[in-house]
Amino acid sequence: VSLPVAIVGASGYTGAELFRLLHAHPEVEIAGVHGKSSAGKRLAEVYPQLAGVSELVLEVADPEAIARRAEVVFSALPHGESAALCEALVARGRRVLDLSADFRLRDLEAHRAWYGEHHAPALAARAVYGLPELHRRELREAALVAVPGCYPTAAVLAVAPLLEAGLIATPLVVDAKSGVSGAGRSPSLATHFPEAGEGIRPYKIAGAHRHTPEIEQELERLAGAPVRVSFTPHLVPMSRGILACVYGAARAGGGFHECLVARWRDEPFVSVLPPGTLPDTSFVRGSNRVHVAVAHDARTGTLVAMSALDNLVKGASGQAVQCLNLMMGWPETTGLRAIAPFP
Amino acid sequence: VSLPVAIVGASGYTGAELFRLLHAHPEVEIAGVHGKSSAGKRLAEVYPQLAGVSELVLEVADPEAIARRAEVVFSALPHGESAALCEALVARGRRVLDLSADFRLRDLEAHRAWYGEHHAPALAARAVYGLPELHRRELREAALVAVPGCYPTAAVLAVAPLLEAGLIATPLVVDAKSGVSGAGRSPSLATHFPEAGEGIRPYKIAGAHRHTPEIEQELERLAGAPVRVSFTPHLVPMSRGILACVYGAARAGGGFHECLVARWRDEPFVSVLPPGTLPDTSFVRGSNRVHVAVAHDARTGTLVAMSALDNLVKGASGQAVQCLNLMMGWPETTGLRAIAPFP
Amino acid sequence: VSLPVAIVGASGYTGAELFRLLHAHPEVEIAGVHGKSSAGKRLAEVYPQLAGVSELVLEVADPEAIARRAEVVFSALPHGESAALCEALVARGRRVLDLSADFRLRDLEAHRAWYGEHHAPALAARAVYGLPELHRRELREAALVAVPGCYPTAAVLAVAPLLEAGLIATPLVVDAKSGVSGAGRSPSLATHFPEAGEGIRPYKIAGAHRHTPEIEQELERLAGAPVRVSFTPHLVPMSRGILACVYGAARAGGGFHECLVARWRDEPFVSVLPPGTLPDTSFVRGSNRVHVAVAHDARTGTLVAMSALDNLVKGASGQAVQCLNLMMGWPETTGLRAIAPFP
Amino acid sequence: VSLPVAIVGASGYTGAELFRLLHAHPEVEIAGVHGKSSAGKRLAEVYPQLAGVSELVLEVADPEAIARRAEVVFSALPHGESAALCEALVARGRRVLDLSADFRLRDLEAHRAWYGEHHAPALAARAVYGLPELHRRELREAALVAVPGCYPTAAVLAVAPLLEAGLIATPLVVDAKSGVSGAGRSPSLATHFPEAGEGIRPYKIAGAHRHTPEIEQELERLAGAPVRVSFTPHLVPMSRGILACVYGAARAGGGFHECLVARWRDEPFVSVLPPGTLPDTSFVRGSNRVHVAVAHDARTGTLVAMSALDNLVKGASGQAVQCLNLMMGWPETTGLRAIAPFP
Repeated sequence: VSLPVAIVGASGYTGAELFRLLHAHPEVEIAGVHGKSSAGKRLAEVYPQLAGVSELVLEVADPEAIARRAEVVFSALPHGESAALCEALVARGRRVLDLSADFRLRDLEAHRAWYGEHHAPALAARAVYGLPELHRRELREAALVAVPGCYPTAAVLAVAPLLEAGLIATPLVVDAKSGVSGAGRSPSLATHFPEAGEGIRPYKIAGAHRHTPEIEQELERLAGAPVRVSFTPHLVPMSRGILACVYGAARAGGGFHECLVARWRDEPFVSVLPPGTLPDTSFVRGSNRVHVAVAHDARTGTLVAMSALDNLVKGASGQAVQCLNLMMGWPETTGLRAIAPFP
Repeated sequence: VSLPVAIVGASGYTGAELFRLLHAHPEVEIAGVHGKSSAGKRLAEVYPQLAGVSELVLEVADPEAIARRAEVVFSALPHGESAALCEALVARGRRVLDLSADFRLRDLEAHRAWYGEHHAPALAARAVYGLPELHRRELREAALVAVPGCYPTAAVLAVAPLLEAGLIATPLVVDAKSGVSGAGRSPSLATHFPEAGEGIRPYKIAGAHRHTPEIEQELERLAGAPVRVSFTPHLVPMSRGILACVYGAARAGGGFHECLVARWRDEPFVSVLPPGTLPDTSFVRGSNRVHVAVAHDARTGTLVAMSALDNLVKGASGQAVQCLNLMMGWPETTGLRAIAPFP
Repeated sequence: VSLPVAIVGASGYTGAELFRLLHAHPEVEIAGVHGKSSAGKRLAEVYPQLAGVSELVLEVADPEAIARRAEVVFSALPHGESAALCEALVARGRRVLDLSADFRLRDLEAHRAWYGEHHAPALAARAVYGLPELHRRELREAALVAVPGCYPTAAVLAVAPLLEAGLIATPLVVDAKSGVSGAGRSPSLATHFPEAGEGIRPYKIAGAHRHTPEIEQELERLAGAPVRVSFTPHLVPMSRGILACVYGAARAGGGFHECLVARWRDEPFVSVLPPGTLPDTSFVRGSNRVHVAVAHDARTGTLVAMSALDNLVKGASGQAVQCLNLMMGWPETTGLRAIAPFP
Repeated sequence: VSLPVAIVGASGYTGAELFRLLHAHPEVEIAGVHGKSSAGKRLAEVYPQLAGVSELVLEVADPEAIARRAEVVFSALPHGESAALCEALVARGRRVLDLSADFRLRDLEAHRAWYGEHHAPALAARAVYGLPELHRRELREAALVAVPGCYPTAAVLAVAPLLEAGLIATPLVVDAKSGVSGAGRSPSLATHFPEAGEGIRPYKIAGAHRHTPEIEQELERLAGAPVRVSFTPHLVPMSRGILACVYGAARAGGGFHECLVARWRDEPFVSVLPPGTLPDTSFVRGSNRVHVAVAHDARTGTLVAMSALDNLVKGASGQAVQCLNLMMGWPETTGLRAIAPFP
């Protein structure tokens, strides 16, 4: 028998991607899709890729009704809106995967500074950060998963082994490049095709982007010490993908590639590229994989740790499904084995 | 037990796409991948999206060896090269799906005019044209399938019901727009990013493109009379997708949408979009679906029959897998239910 | 001494393009830039390409003040808003080039049907349609120029000589493909990068697009008889450019290319491409040129008349400057000789 | 009277861009265009944007014939091929602007290590590095100008004032993103649209790119001390543009923006963006301008110095024309005042 799940916030890009992945998941049945502005519409009306695929109608997100129907709930609501729903569902004994930022920062002070007042502070301590490569054990038991941001997933997976092994010094520079779908489905001048379609630009640099404290939180956990990163996100004329380059001073003369290989050997979704091959977002688009590599610039003593992933899959909805698999005790790759449809 | 299949010409885009789809197919095992120039290399070296996914090594395409190992063979060799291999495999009792143009034209004179001397003329008569929506019955028994070209699939599916029903007059204009992957993986000035990346252009128009006789062949079969099309292909700055607009004079005052709905009702991969919605390649990218719609311009008496598909899936490799499902008596959608990863 | 000109609606794309072209025009001085929502801002704040180039500040569009300062006024206001301003300026003896649709349709009934009530009906009869290739003589004396739409410019220039010469039959099919800047600078879901960036789609087809009556008006003038066109615009993932393919039945067996050559021989901005070369928007981007070609599909008796232009230059602001040159008796190419910056 | 100039290597992108810029230059007449593989063809056949603009025919590059006809010669030949021609022309008293890398590195040992044997070592010492912002005085007298590489122009202009002023520590990280036209007009798998069109990737990182020593040479000159940079170039799905982010440790608590403003105040082509505005390649495309900005990440003590330019204009051909203006004593902006055609 299938596990009934619900998707709240299904009319956004991560919601639609959850639908795509869960639709292909052999152990799951999508019991309901929920939205606010588009409640009452057929999901296929909002997303024509579902024409002929699904007749589901978007409903408002009533926790009581959702809890009756679904065992597990994915929330893709905006931050600030998600916490209360998650709380209501957890209170009803449902397990919840929250793709918003509401439960990502453990430090409620930091949360307040970056996102405003927390709407479910009591619950925050129970949330598990949904990066399986770092939190697999806790995820198996989690009632509430805070699915990581796209940039933090890319940055942390790029550099984690080097930091754990003491091979790279801090502070770090994270120069990351994202496809435009990372900005969500709401139109804006910044994402209007003629403005974003044939050029590249940085935005919210030098500590202004909300993913900065999230990256630092996870890296500090690994380093066992304060870590500061200077984070420069960019908007690139492509729909999907994040490429992250993490720079820091090398603390050894070699062994960097080997460090990655050893650390990620058993990870089903992390591929350390062979020496000489560099990550390219084209090769992970549409899949849950992350490609990583490291280079040592001996002349400057700099390490360049790189990763490429799909911001909507490993950077959001695919990662959520990976967490679900852990929570349910299913093989971690269930429903996530699809190869990136390159080109 | 899985069906062992082989992919010949695996280093091209349709070959890679066959690998992607067959890798996800529950009834199939990929027993071998074969190429010429890249024989000896790991497929993952040629296609980094396979890093961590497959350790298969490309081998030369020896029919004897292939026949020993595979029950069914997909050939994605270039036209002219494919026929002899197909013949050798069919002679050894293997069922073959040929993605080249070698067996698409029934008229060997026409084949000679467009493609040069046929290398397996005796076999040509036995090939079944692999468009399930029109040839489903014959495909179940086929030993050799000529998988249609991408443009013919788009053009024929756009207009077939209208032509069958006598609702559209000929000649037709087919104005079709393709992503650049349709040109294959060999670099050329025409597909060099700075030349093709931010503009649109027609090419091989007014009867110069080899897909013209293929479109006409299938439409004539439906119309039961000669059909001439004026075909204008275009190159669009996107990787995947074909959008076809087929124009012809209306032979009735209405009933066009209903005609499509009735004809395609039971087709698992053809979606007639609701009135007011128009096809968009973004919504079929990466999936085996084709979206169709029709509009009647009453002022000019013109019908506009439209379709959108992914040239590498429904226009090539997905269609081949759909044919395989028919040949093997499996549910036709096996391994092909993935939703388009929009955006 | 320079001619003082003003640009109203300078914060839109055609307004910015007017600024770019007039800034490079040797006989002109930009005396003022005017907007509504952005009044009070520096133009360089709205358009960072002007950083270090211009310190002009956007002002509200008061006709009295504008007339005091400028001899000639370009209005790039939205349709419906432009007419009243144009009337006020013409009443003050200023010559006006209106880039909106307010004065394009001579038939006020048609205008009402497509755009709503006309706000300066008395003035409409005095407007000259600003397509120099067809209306050069009247433009020299014009007090008010209705600068053509982008699609009509492309469609009309593609087919005009053939229609004049009786070489093509009607009705016509106009299948046109446009870059996204044609939709203006206001963000929308349709122009949001993830929706429009990697796919192609038709919109407002079968007589639904407002440029339909404008195309027909000009073609009827040439044909001396009613002309109906079935118009299919598309959105293409590129910022600039229109490619138009006009289809109709040939009324002769040849002489089509020669017809174009003879008709356009003395036109400074129309290039008939040599046989075998087809238009490509990449080669006209940023320039005021239009590339045209024609092909005869003898098998179907169809003519394919093609054109490529930049929707913001020859399709809007460049054409306006070309009209200005005519109005002022300057060489027609003044300020417009720039070569397209390909690639 | 106009200055007769010749363009050698006119069939490449920088050659075509030289043609575009020199065609618009009021003091110059293009006396000849020269190529190798395309000699004998009309330039408009190689570059259709010139249809109707130029009838010039490409000729082989005979130094004697060129020297007879042209006073100044631009060489856009590949490195290794250019030096001998430059030598022959200088020997004949012609002034030469070399866009290849042949004369960029002053250290002939370094040149040999990166590019192989130098073909005109005696001449190398006389070459002036063609970055007007740093070498204006010497350029006025130069007989031979080594026009800088695109990445070095971007990187050096981004960080030069901070380094001169001692506000930034070394080593530096240069994370730069380039449009695909930087790879030239020769097709390759890396620049094939389906490979490069919808993804981003780094290449030749960690000291492997030939622009590394060129960046270091110029920065060392400014710093008066050895400077090491770790350079990470990327390929971005756009035709034109380079965005460079230069990272280094801050050596002061503030005054960074002011430093840029003071240093670039009188530079005609460098715009320091107002605080809060970040560079975007879209806003400099097609123009000779470079946009720069700096941000201080106080938490990590990192400076982010950024620049955006068009790799074919300020990064190559426009810079060459700027140098020509200096050499001839013309106003430095002659022929280069065009505003970027955004969008």
